[in-house]
Amino acid sequence: MSDAMKLVVVGAGGRMGQTVLRLIQATEGAVVHAAVERSGSPLIGRDAGELAGLGSIGVPVTDDPLAAFVHADGVIDFTSPAASVEYAGLAAQARIVHVVGTTGCTADDDAKIAAAARHARIVKSGNMSLGVNLLSVLVKRAAQALDAAGWDIEVLEMHHKRKVDAPSGTALLLGQAAAEGRGIDLADHSVRVRDGHTGPREEGSIGFATLRGGSVIGEHSVLFAGEGETITLSHSAGDRSLFARGALRAALWARDKKPGLYSMLDVLGLSSSN
Amino acid sequence: MSDAMKLVVVGAGGRMGQTVLRLIQATEGAVVHAAVERSGSPLIGRDAGELAGLGSIGVPVTDDPLAAFVHADGVIDFTSPAASVEYAGLAAQARIVHVVGTTGCTADDDAKIAAAARHARIVKSGNMSLGVNLLSVLVKRAAQALDAAGWDIEVLEMHHKRKVDAPSGTALLLGQAAAEGRGIDLADHSVRVRDGHTGPREEGSIGFATLRGGSVIGEHSVLFAGEGETITLSHSAGDRSLFARGALRAALWARDKKPGLYSMLDVLGLSSSN
Amino acid sequence: MSDAMKLVVVGAGGRMGQTVLRLIQATEGAVVHAAVERSGSPLIGRDAGELAGLGSIGVPVTDDPLAAFVHADGVIDFTSPAASVEYAGLAAQARIVHVVGTTGCTADDDAKIAAAARHARIVKSGNMSLGVNLLSVLVKRAAQALDAAGWDIEVLEMHHKRKVDAPSGTALLLGQAAAEGRGIDLADHSVRVRDGHTGPREEGSIGFATLRGGSVIGEHSVLFAGEGETITLSHSAGDRSLFARGALRAALWARDKKPGLYSMLDVLGLSSSN
Amino acid sequence: MSDAMKLVVVGAGGRMGQTVLRLIQATEGAVVHAAVERSGSPLIGRDAGELAGLGSIGVPVTDDPLAAFVHADGVIDFTSPAASVEYAGLAAQARIVHVVGTTGCTADDDAKIAAAARHARIVKSGNMSLGVNLLSVLVKRAAQALDAAGWDIEVLEMHHKRKVDAPSGTALLLGQAAAEGRGIDLADHSVRVRDGHTGPREEGSIGFATLRGGSVIGEHSVLFAGEGETITLSHSAGDRSLFARGALRAALWARDKKPGLYSMLDVLGLSSSN
Repeated sequence: MSDAMKLVVVGAGGRMGQTVLRLIQATEGAVVHAAVERSGSPLIGRDAGELAGLGSIGVPVTDDPLAAFVHADGVIDFTSPAASVEYAGLAAQARIVHVVGTTGCTADDDAKIAAAARHARIVKSGNMSLGVNLLSVLVKRAAQALDAAGWDIEVLEMHHKRKVDAPSGTALLLGQAAAEGRGIDLADHSVRVRDGHTGPREEGSIGFATLRGGSVIGEHSVLFAGEGETITLSHSAGDRSLFARGALRAALWARDKKPGLYSMLDVLGLSSSN
Repeated sequence: MSDAMKLVVVGAGGRMGQTVLRLIQATEGAVVHAAVERSGSPLIGRDAGELAGLGSIGVPVTDDPLAAFVHADGVIDFTSPAASVEYAGLAAQARIVHVVGTTGCTADDDAKIAAAARHARIVKSGNMSLGVNLLSVLVKRAAQALDAAGWDIEVLEMHHKRKVDAPSGTALLLGQAAAEGRGIDLADHSVRVRDGHTGPREEGSIGFATLRGGSVIGEHSVLFAGEGETITLSHSAGDRSLFARGALRAALWARDKKPGLYSMLDVLGLSSSN
Repeated sequence: MSDAMKLVVVGAGGRMGQTVLRLIQATEGAVVHAAVERSGSPLIGRDAGELAGLGSIGVPVTDDPLAAFVHADGVIDFTSPAASVEYAGLAAQARIVHVVGTTGCTADDDAKIAAAARHARIVKSGNMSLGVNLLSVLVKRAAQALDAAGWDIEVLEMHHKRKVDAPSGTALLLGQAAAEGRGIDLADHSVRVRDGHTGPREEGSIGFATLRGGSVIGEHSVLFAGEGETITLSHSAGDRSLFARGALRAALWARDKKPGLYSMLDVLGLSSSN
Repeated sequence: MSDAMKLVVVGAGGRMGQTVLRLIQATEGAVVHAAVERSGSPLIGRDAGELAGLGSIGVPVTDDPLAAFVHADGVIDFTSPAASVEYAGLAAQARIVHVVGTTGCTADDDAKIAAAARHARIVKSGNMSLGVNLLSVLVKRAAQALDAAGWDIEVLEMHHKRKVDAPSGTALLLGQAAAEGRGIDLADHSVRVRDGHTGPREEGSIGFATLRGGSVIGEHSVLFAGEGETITLSHSAGDRSLFARGALRAALWARDKKPGLYSMLDVLGLSSSN
């Protein structure tokens, strides 16, 4: 176990942070090295394992990420854009792995994270699951094969009633994959809503539709509707720990890579098919 | 065959009109009595059977609906709101059956049609299929049973790329059934689109989402999403003649009824369960 | 809290037992009165709360159900047919509520449980969720409305890879609801599998199809396929605690009822629509 | 129009034959050169266009395929295995294109057709639609990416009530694509039905499930079910002319190819991704 990857969990008090803590403890080849929360959090000093329902693991929550990162091998991060940008800079200083599952980053945030990747090994994705990443590869492939003149692309998603934005980041990721397959720009071709007299569907557009309700974790479908036939490529997430598992897999994968910015497609060996 | 129901097809040159003509010819107990198009149509005087790919049936298309109705038993009408209001008035004069599959009527149109129903036997519905009408009964029943505090209702529909309005009339009919089950007003509770920062889903709302593409004839789903479980009630139409069959069934059903305004739920014997 | 319902959890060491323990602790109006495991279990004497990850609740696991039942108000039971028959007898002696979520009972087991219901208030169902029970009501209603000559009924289910029997008890429950709606006997009309040269589908039959894979908790659909249209009524379970919640609801509901054998349809107020 | 491809329709009196006749007449670049039925058919000598509801096209149905083929450019064939083997031999003699949409061929039939492909340009597929062929490519790709230890593959299909065999040829084609992606033999790993006590799902198996009902033209789904997530890849056919269009596209594509045996993947430019 001397070779186990030493991982820092940032946002350790959040729902995803706790899921990641539990997963690391259950995984051979990885150990919880430190747990970070923001300054002023009432959780500072409490045992991270107890927060996560694991019993004490001897790791008190800290608000000093630099001290936490310096002897670590990697950090797993489902926090917020501003925090992730800061952590990327610290990961670069410490020359460790930084797995970023944070969503909602601006282009400016992304540029800063890319700059940090000159020294850190950063894996960043809008969705950490194997399934969604594979689906994006299949969507791109299908969009390449199906002529826009005869095939209409629609992206449908459903999430729980507490989700506050639409369409989901994953729906946009899938729309982006479709646009790449067609060699078009998503922003110029997306139809985000339809209501009232819309006129006929515009050829070459990519439509989105959003459902909200209950406790649904995440359902996504991309439809390719042609004359007399429809292809539907779907993903259903049944369990939030899915995303933690993807992040841990990314951390372990990146351990022996060169500094750089990687995607889950790289981690999953799916890039070549692009 | 002397007792066959003598039916007039209005809008005989349209896609639904021709489907109705073919169906009547194929149905024992019904005959094409007349075929009507609007004044100035180039089809006036041509044989209705030839238009519909049946070969000649000895019924030239006319632009005189009153003459067409006077010795008929009923009229089947998938036209436009203004035309249907006019035909309802003529059906009242002729005291015959008038089956109205026309969609998009205003409240004022509906009031005129209801007035005509003092003398005509009128069957009017936003969707003539048995399946959709039964679905609306089931949706109303489910909405009665499921508390708005724990169950979110969403209506999803998909149609072909040429459809010019959203949501579909049938989606609204199903949303209306859900609202009736809950004892609420649909207009006050419907969420027609979602885009950007929407905030959490409002309790008690009924959401709509619309997909467009290919040649899809009509797919509708009503979702009831609760904590840890979802019920989905769906209808898929594979064939446009479905609606013609429903209209003909309505005409035959109404033949011996008293004057009045009926729905497909009456025709199908589904009203009592409401 | 003096009026809280005192509940015994039998099979307290199992996955469902622990879920029920956690739920009772989190519910105002209910308390864990006792926790029962079979004689010889290594869990006897351990604290039930600790088993369930709740920390100590001062209730040691016992192998004496009679002592556990005698001052209780009810028992929640997801165990095995033989155990449930025994517990029903003891619940009758103690004149308390017995909620039975156990599946796989024979007709003989059911008769014994029914006999116990002369003195106990027993609620028994093949599926404790509100959603599935409502779905069964809708399936029965649809089967009543749709003529077997034109509408084919199929039941599809999917469960996780560890499930050892097919079709699921819930699929059979839904098939039974369809058969009741049609006024036929399910056993005489069910087609359990299809492979090779089957010949055309037999009119009036009810088909079953089974999928197995991954960690799927439970997906069920009943299809009514007609000429040119299909109605699909579906339920998706995302969370095992669903069944615990239904059982606790049943226990609270039954507290002030007369002795007798009840179903979840009674608990949920859905019986009248049958 | 002198360069239009001269096509023979065999099985001209069947449902697919008539659909092909109508499609050729409606397509620039193709003409009906001859129409063949088996000896003894009452249709011999009748005009092929009249059979297909097109009015006379001056092509009487013949029972002499060799005479029909000799000055033709190609033949489109949705008949039976024995007939297709015979037609392949004649196409080889005439050195023309032979598009074979016939299903149910034995290995021996396939060997004879392959032998004929030394002189004829033969395109053969279990499903002529673009959508299903693309789906098979995506299924193979997904099966390559998803480890059998964690992902269970299931194939679900639904067809109309008159279909006499199960699973469908297309379901088997998709199962074959999945098996190729995994590098396994389908016959050794397929589970065709499940009923009663099945035990847990066997790792690495590929399951099939079959639904029958109504007038459904063809629905196929391949599910990849993992821990906490499921990917579903589906195709829905809404229109039988889909298969005729694929066959005509294949004929036009093969016109300038060398003799050989091609698949729809070749026609559609999807082979390289395999």
